[in-house]
Amino acid sequence: MDQTLKQTLLDAIRTIPDYPKPGIQFRDITTLLGNPKAFRRSVDELVHPYAGTNIDQIAGIEARGFILGGAIAHQLSAGFVPIRKKGKLPYDTVRVAYSLEYGVDEMEMHKDAVSSGEKVILVDDLIATGGTAEGAVKLLRQMGAEIVAACFVIDLPDLGGRKKLEDLGVTVRTLVEFEGD
Amino acid sequence: MDQTLKQTLLDAIRTIPDYPKPGIQFRDITTLLGNPKAFRRSVDELVHPYAGTNIDQIAGIEARGFILGGAIAHQLSAGFVPIRKKGKLPYDTVRVAYSLEYGVDEMEMHKDAVSSGEKVILVDDLIATGGTAEGAVKLLRQMGAEIVAACFVIDLPDLGGRKKLEDLGVTVRTLVEFEGD
Repeated sequence: MDQTLKQTLLDAIRTIPDYPKPGIQFRDITTLLGNPKAFRRSVDELVHPYAGTNIDQIAGIEARGFILGGAIAHQLSAGFVPIRKKGKLPYDTVRVAYSLEYGVDEMEMHKDAVSSGEKVILVDDLIATGGTAEGAVKLLRQMGAEIVAACFVIDLPDLGGRKKLEDLGVTVRTLVEFEGD
Repeated sequence: MDQTLKQTLLDAIRTIPDYPKPGIQFRDITTLLGNPKAFRRSVDELVHPYAGTNIDQIAGIEARGFILGGAIAHQLSAGFVPIRKKGKLPYDTVRVAYSLEYGVDEMEMHKDAVSSGEKVILVDDLIATGGTAEGAVKLLRQMGAEIVAACFVIDLPDLGGRKKLEDLGVTVRTLVEFEGD
């Protein structure tokens, strides 16, 4: 990705100091989403490697992963699969526990959302520790999906999420990084 | 919209009887989202009237409105504004109360997400009583937005939401209806 585009995206992300608690620099992607050029370029950049390939489903992680994932699914003429916090999906689900900063929670996917052998791209806005993405990878693989890639706009490499996914054999694609977070 | 397409979309929506409680026929859009053709056609059909017009922002209502709204924003090269349940947005917000079936809740938007005079399309998956959409319309107008239209895939006309929005002067665009809900 060219450096001008990378800078455009970085400039479009708002940093909120001491949120949600002192010492945390929160990377707020809503200003990028609300910037027509930055949003469009982000989606296009994530999509390009897969144009013309056969992708069956885009799995988006609630909630910001839905925004990017919906756009990517439409661009690739794929379906969209929501991965949600527990208790929010109306039909029969498969469920997995995942690690939060403190403690664990559970996420779900409809049990018929992905078929064995389907090619899936996982999408979220940001990868930090990778706990949520790791849970999503487990859910998708449990259903027999082939995870072609996991795509994020923002990588916080110091928190180790990218490496965690790569250690699981997942190809990770990100657009910009904030070091030292 | 032609009847074949309408039937394709209707066939792609799953009905879950007695969910979330006895007597309710829940219209589950996740099967439409997961169907590549039905999802793509839904987005395209909602987008077509606005192709070539100047739309500044797509406001999507959490959470399923994010999926369709993200795709529509990308197609129209507009920005995307999330309207979320209270307490989920990291920056300063404007807030409005809205009616649920029982009681009220509050929704929020970042205070700088929409500027006065901007042309906005509101997006959600389904309109029922219209309480949520009405709240979103109030928020957007409070910030001076011009609401060009409110778009939904599914209309449950017997619940009156469409009429509620039209009475507020909002143009409503929907793709399929379930009567008797």
